[in-house]
Amino acid sequence: MRTQEGGTIRGCKLASATFGALNSAKDNAILIPTWYSGTNKIIEQVYIGKGRALDPDKYVIIIVNQIGSGPSTSPHNTPLPAGMGNFPRVRISDDVRAQYKLITEKFGLKSLALVVGGSMGAQQTYEWAVRYPDAVKRAAPIAGTAKNTEHDFLFTETLVDAITSDPGFNDGFYNSSADVRQGLLRHAKMWAVMGWSTEFFKQNRHRALGFSSMDDFIINFTNGYFCVMDPNDLLCMAWKWQRGDVSRVTGGNLKEALGRINAKTFVMPIDDDMFFRPNDCEAEQKMIAGSEFRLLKSIDGHLSLFGNNADFLGQVDKNLKDLLAIAV
Amino acid sequence: MRTQEGGTIRGCKLASATFGALNSAKDNAILIPTWYSGTNKIIEQVYIGKGRALDPDKYVIIIVNQIGSGPSTSPHNTPLPAGMGNFPRVRISDDVRAQYKLITEKFGLKSLALVVGGSMGAQQTYEWAVRYPDAVKRAAPIAGTAKNTEHDFLFTETLVDAITSDPGFNDGFYNSSADVRQGLLRHAKMWAVMGWSTEFFKQNRHRALGFSSMDDFIINFTNGYFCVMDPNDLLCMAWKWQRGDVSRVTGGNLKEALGRINAKTFVMPIDDDMFFRPNDCEAEQKMIAGSEFRLLKSIDGHLSLFGNNADFLGQVDKNLKDLLAIAV
Repeated sequence: MRTQEGGTIRGCKLASATFGALNSAKDNAILIPTWYSGTNKIIEQVYIGKGRALDPDKYVIIIVNQIGSGPSTSPHNTPLPAGMGNFPRVRISDDVRAQYKLITEKFGLKSLALVVGGSMGAQQTYEWAVRYPDAVKRAAPIAGTAKNTEHDFLFTETLVDAITSDPGFNDGFYNSSADVRQGLLRHAKMWAVMGWSTEFFKQNRHRALGFSSMDDFIINFTNGYFCVMDPNDLLCMAWKWQRGDVSRVTGGNLKEALGRINAKTFVMPIDDDMFFRPNDCEAEQKMIAGSEFRLLKSIDGHLSLFGNNADFLGQVDKNLKDLLAIAV
Repeated sequence: MRTQEGGTIRGCKLASATFGALNSAKDNAILIPTWYSGTNKIIEQVYIGKGRALDPDKYVIIIVNQIGSGPSTSPHNTPLPAGMGNFPRVRISDDVRAQYKLITEKFGLKSLALVVGGSMGAQQTYEWAVRYPDAVKRAAPIAGTAKNTEHDFLFTETLVDAITSDPGFNDGFYNSSADVRQGLLRHAKMWAVMGWSTEFFKQNRHRALGFSSMDDFIINFTNGYFCVMDPNDLLCMAWKWQRGDVSRVTGGNLKEALGRINAKTFVMPIDDDMFFRPNDCEAEQKMIAGSEFRLLKSIDGHLSLFGNNADFLGQVDKNLKDLLAIAV
């Protein structure tokens, strides 16, 4: 059973979809915050299914689109004067506080059996576990950090620059995304460099996925995914991504913030991820009581999250099944 | 003893500097091709010295600036119509063929005791060993490949795009580099992302080097180095770098090309290098008879080559001493 839901929190719409049904104890709800635009569909298509860890026969699974990603309130769908280049700066914590209201007020839940998400979804997962420690029973941040690194902040800034430097961007007040086409193409190419890995191209994974050449891959996959997104939406997410930091809850003390977590937590970085290095994730994992470090192996790098790699999905499933099997 | 030299090969000037003196057997010459603009000075200041592997008391050491890097013939110092945006596409093999003439005709040498270079200097080192197998007794390519990877080609393209997308670039016919300032700044920031490593920033190496913040580091180091270069010079080098490939000598057969090498070769990638991954370098090393894989460890990543890390320099020295001690 799939239902479209949505909550409007103080004028902010959170688009969500649910799968499965709540049991009488209301203790079988799983929340999956999205990472980028369109990832709600990816999550639905490749991560959820009967017999999988995220099984709608056993759980009610709520996919919630982050603010700025398109389906939820975003620069491109907000009327002026607050839309486009005027859209407010939004933080991961704004998403999570709005999601908390959605979960408690709309769904009437007191807790979640699991919060799981990749990339910016991992940032939201950490924020949930730190901000609402009693509401999160299990947490699985995949390929993301609790506090973003300076290096990743810098990389994201180069993505931002690729878009804002396009004269057609016009400070966020373009007539259509097509005016920012050159900037979007540069932005997409930078994703192609950092999104996968050297090994991905060396082992011809792009060809194994059905693309005849690097050009074919860039044009029909990377551009096909990133260039259809709205420039202001991308910048809204990038600003938020850069500043993801659970230690804002504890005045900058990361150890204290991660010490608040009660959830049984599996920290799951990807070994060939160029943004969120396993080292960085492991350092955070060690600050979370009773947590486990579960390294995912995939030469698809960060964008393994697209789910094109069956072996990667198998590893995710295995870990999530292990996590859900733990009594809390 | 330091002397400025220069050779002009069919109108192309190769700027070089030599240290030390040739012995009577003329078998103590070392060639160091440069990587980027200004690296001739870096090589001189941090890699050469008494008691070091590259000791001017024992060897005559020739630093030769690659075409397009500034001191040698380059877009910015070539008069129109061949200068600026009209400068011809030059390959690594053009450099090495010109250097061969310089070494044999100007210096009267038949062979080199060692060719050693980092990054694009490594590309030239490989080209030397493949193209002139009898002239190169020892080879030490550091942090570079014999055949560039598709992934690295793509990264370099994003660097190129950062410059060419600046409206002030004007297809290479700007009035001054200042017209391309925004593009140069974006280009430099991308180097800051890929040039070092996540671990570099995490362990605050930029602060250890005397910079108070990331901004300080970007402005005074990264921009200070890259933004003073001429945009067309940078693009000349980038085009060449992208297409570095010794297998052009053997009709595309890399194994056959590397099989031509007679030099005793130490392949020396850097473990945290984001461009030239140790895996890629090791795959090439295995195709070179009698070669050794000597991994350098440094969280400074590719730009360890700047020589800011004493431990890294110690490793390079140790390996080069070992290599030079081998009788050939």
